[in-house]
Amino acid sequence: MLSKEEMKSYLKEHLTESRYNHTLSVVETAIRLAQIYKVDKNKAEIAALAHDIAKNMTIYDLKSIIDENNIKLSYDEEKTPELWHSIVGPIVGKKIFKIEDEEILSAMRWHTTGRENMSKLEKVIYIADMIEPGRSFPGVDLIRKESFNDLDKGILQGLTHTIKYLLDKGFPIDINSIKARNYLVLNK
Amino acid sequence: MLSKEEMKSYLKEHLTESRYNHTLSVVETAIRLAQIYKVDKNKAEIAALAHDIAKNMTIYDLKSIIDENNIKLSYDEEKTPELWHSIVGPIVGKKIFKIEDEEILSAMRWHTTGRENMSKLEKVIYIADMIEPGRSFPGVDLIRKESFNDLDKGILQGLTHTIKYLLDKGFPIDINSIKARNYLVLNK
Repeated sequence: MLSKEEMKSYLKEHLTESRYNHTLSVVETAIRLAQIYKVDKNKAEIAALAHDIAKNMTIYDLKSIIDENNIKLSYDEEKTPELWHSIVGPIVGKKIFKIEDEEILSAMRWHTTGRENMSKLEKVIYIADMIEPGRSFPGVDLIRKESFNDLDKGILQGLTHTIKYLLDKGFPIDINSIKARNYLVLNK
Repeated sequence: MLSKEEMKSYLKEHLTESRYNHTLSVVETAIRLAQIYKVDKNKAEIAALAHDIAKNMTIYDLKSIIDENNIKLSYDEEKTPELWHSIVGPIVGKKIFKIEDEEILSAMRWHTTGRENMSKLEKVIYIADMIEPGRSFPGVDLIRKESFNDLDKGILQGLTHTIKYLLDKGFPIDINSIKARNYLVLNK
């Protein structure tokens, strides 16, 4: 696996400046959350560093990688290119960063939508991405506060916020976010 | 198939008074919508009459019928008994009312949640159930008005209303409602 410094050099070159700064904030937030919730700090740091590795690729490049890897998109995923960087992220992370740890790759894969019955590392990366200090959408303070008190409650609020945002904007909602929320609602 | 009068007699006996009155209002609303949107009026009337046939059965009886018919519930469906009457409805409709028409049975099946790529009859029954004159939740007037102007827009507003309600109440959201909405959003 590449060293963290090597990963940063790659990201600095392949992400926009604001995206790179966002990544560093997610790293910082993920490490804090990992400490609180007893998640492997090293894994959290690497997953956070790598989570947006494919974010600034063109949708053409993203689609090529999806096709080359024979990934079958659902009808809704096909129509939602915003999700593709999460699908492609683990593939690029494996190839460029030489990440082999399945827990880290899975946290990268599900960082945008969440999924049913998430691991603690997946939860930490999902919510760190949403609440890092640079995020400033209405309601973020409450979600941030809750996430440091109770991880599942923070995630439930984060998912609810995102689903309402998509409803109001008239955008499609990823099924995995609904399954993530249902799981938390039904297993409180 | 039973006559409509025979169906009404059965429903009067097996539903509560308020549920029976709701059914008659759904019939009336479904017929009006069927006229506007060129849906078979006779099918709309029968589907509306039968849509809640299993609504006042006990959850034990509903579960028995689900099990006897080897219907495999998802984890979320298993935990949401509110949906079971829609799953059982077509089975009872077939057995008691002798309904064989698959379009009618399908409109009964999906009247609570909707589903991806609904038929026009399914849409009419779904929205008639939500906007019949007895319904009085906040926002119903707008959904009602929209439904008589543009069926898909009315359904989209109805789905959005229900999903927000479930979010606010902390209840699980059925995946089929999300797929129904995504389909409408992506095929406007």
